[in-house]
Amino acid sequence: MRALRFHIERQDGEARAGVLTTRRGRIETPVFMPVGTAGTVKGIRFEELESTDLDAKIILGNTYHLWLRPGIDVIRAAGGLHRFIGWDRALLTDSGGFQVWSLGALRKISEEGTEFRSHVDGSLRFLSPEVSMEVQAALGSDIVMVFDECAPGQASHEETERSVNLTTRWAKRSKAAFNQLQLDRADTGHLEAKDLSGTQALFGIAQGAGHLDLRRISLDETVNIGFDGYAIGGLSVGEEKSLMFDVIEDVAPRMPKDAPRYLMGVGTPEDLVEAVARGVDMFDCVLPTRNGRTGQAFTSRGKLNIKNAQWVNDSRPLDESCRCSVCRRHTRAYLRHLHMTGEMLASILLTHHNLAFFLDTMRGVRQSIRSGDFPKFRREFTERLGANGE
Amino acid sequence: MRALRFHIERQDGEARAGVLTTRRGRIETPVFMPVGTAGTVKGIRFEELESTDLDAKIILGNTYHLWLRPGIDVIRAAGGLHRFIGWDRALLTDSGGFQVWSLGALRKISEEGTEFRSHVDGSLRFLSPEVSMEVQAALGSDIVMVFDECAPGQASHEETERSVNLTTRWAKRSKAAFNQLQLDRADTGHLEAKDLSGTQALFGIAQGAGHLDLRRISLDETVNIGFDGYAIGGLSVGEEKSLMFDVIEDVAPRMPKDAPRYLMGVGTPEDLVEAVARGVDMFDCVLPTRNGRTGQAFTSRGKLNIKNAQWVNDSRPLDESCRCSVCRRHTRAYLRHLHMTGEMLASILLTHHNLAFFLDTMRGVRQSIRSGDFPKFRREFTERLGANGE
Repeated sequence: MRALRFHIERQDGEARAGVLTTRRGRIETPVFMPVGTAGTVKGIRFEELESTDLDAKIILGNTYHLWLRPGIDVIRAAGGLHRFIGWDRALLTDSGGFQVWSLGALRKISEEGTEFRSHVDGSLRFLSPEVSMEVQAALGSDIVMVFDECAPGQASHEETERSVNLTTRWAKRSKAAFNQLQLDRADTGHLEAKDLSGTQALFGIAQGAGHLDLRRISLDETVNIGFDGYAIGGLSVGEEKSLMFDVIEDVAPRMPKDAPRYLMGVGTPEDLVEAVARGVDMFDCVLPTRNGRTGQAFTSRGKLNIKNAQWVNDSRPLDESCRCSVCRRHTRAYLRHLHMTGEMLASILLTHHNLAFFLDTMRGVRQSIRSGDFPKFRREFTERLGANGE
Repeated sequence: MRALRFHIERQDGEARAGVLTTRRGRIETPVFMPVGTAGTVKGIRFEELESTDLDAKIILGNTYHLWLRPGIDVIRAAGGLHRFIGWDRALLTDSGGFQVWSLGALRKISEEGTEFRSHVDGSLRFLSPEVSMEVQAALGSDIVMVFDECAPGQASHEETERSVNLTTRWAKRSKAAFNQLQLDRADTGHLEAKDLSGTQALFGIAQGAGHLDLRRISLDETVNIGFDGYAIGGLSVGEEKSLMFDVIEDVAPRMPKDAPRYLMGVGTPEDLVEAVARGVDMFDCVLPTRNGRTGQAFTSRGKLNIKNAQWVNDSRPLDESCRCSVCRRHTRAYLRHLHMTGEMLASILLTHHNLAFFLDTMRGVRQSIRSGDFPKFRREFTERLGANGE
């Protein structure tokens, strides 16, 4: 029995509309997953994530952050991450690989794993495929990611090849440790569908920086190991955007057709739509939340910086096409005032709107694929985005 | 025709349960008003303030803060404070007198008014009864406060007498300027009841620091001028709590019985209940919001500091007797984690719970007065508050 079920219901070119069923419920794809790094999607209450405004079916948690703080003992005592944070829908956890890689000089990579200093208390920590699987088992996320090694966007062929090979060996170790942990565990969360195993699901990650030959090798080796879903990692890490799309366009259509395809850490609304056009099913990105906190709104007519003096008396909502609770109630003039005054409500409201815009964009994407209108949606969406010229 | 209607429906000792009808709606008293300094009750969305969890019928705005930022031109252009912030229920604005007084050395008081430097941009500003009334007319609040002068808690009799006399003269000028402004204005907000004038209401403020004779004089002079409601100002500004209650106990029962009595800037939940027992009808205080942001929760068993290590694995809600959305969903362990990690959600959730506790306490107060059980409510409430011994 499989840990999750996935099937494509409609395809329009490479774009796919499907349904991913995890043990916590049914998720229509393509799907955007808000990032809940430390057990909270920053600035937003779970009630809002569940509201019809947003209706996020799955959110992310970060193994690295949660492992360091509050620590696995606390989350284990609470009965897993769902119970700890009070969220009953699906959770995906990353492996910590990317966060540790982001520490740069503070980490030391060996065959065994990665040694690094905690950003919280400076203590020396060691993360490996086995530790990451152990932590993610304790978190009890519905989708677990393998522990991988990320090559920098501009990495040489030689450096990337070494990294890809290490990622493959770590993927094998991740799967072995994961399988053992699933055997050991009885707790499976509640079960959405009778034909699911009730265990966590495990996704593999293909790396390879900007080298298409290595990307293909990494994908092949990952698929050979065999996972419940497959991710493209190591993009949006400083490379040119055209290179990113070259990789997606080459790799995505080669990924297994009957498994979900997850593009990690990407991207802007237009990136999402363009990646869907190349066959991607799942996304996560901090942009809607992070940029909301710094005063940037994503709208159907492009980005809007709420700090700009031009909004001082503007009685329009952030996005005149948006039906979210923020756009129904508040003006740009008010949101600008909140932001300029340093009021927390500015972050709260911009985060809400940005998430609504990302999630609504994905709803539009799904509907257009199902109705066979995705090319039209994509064209009009892209044209509108340029309207403000910002 | 009067600007508001107020009548007592039930009295239990000095405690009064009544109904205050402003042009924006019906407010059951005793009532607690959350403080929305700069056009936002910090950390909470208006939807939550309106929700059954909180159901705040009236909130405060600060003339001083809004006058400096975003400035009256912006709020006027938006059509008043209600429209600017997106809040259709009642608003009370203070006069700026207290904020300017709080600036200490940065201000210079004369017969004409107060000169001070803006905390925003350092510019020299001048606030007087006439300016305050002009600003509050532009804000369009439903209840306007006179521009007063606050004597320090430990002020001498001579100093306080001078201050009280100035406050009386400023109250007369406030009323004259206010009346002229009401004549000049057509816009009245929507009208709740046919027998209301549709103008703003104006409250007078009795000062007098800790000197009961001056308190009585100030009250008499204020009542002689004649206002829609009467406030006790200049308490909770550093004086002993016993002195504060001496003043309230002496002054409140002498205030007009047929007008709302407002105790400004007070206080803790127990202060509120004790002041109700002495005949007060209206309260505002920053404690639930400000302390929520620093990790302090108000509960039926006393204060709770969410930072404490004892909560690290505590699966109980903040307050086991509370039915607010935070207590229904989240544990102390999770809230502690959010606070220790510096997550905005900690402030959001603690603010929500604290406001729920204050507003729920006032609901309990009103019900118990109406059922003649206020003494029992007061006794049990006070006993429970000491339960945690914190």
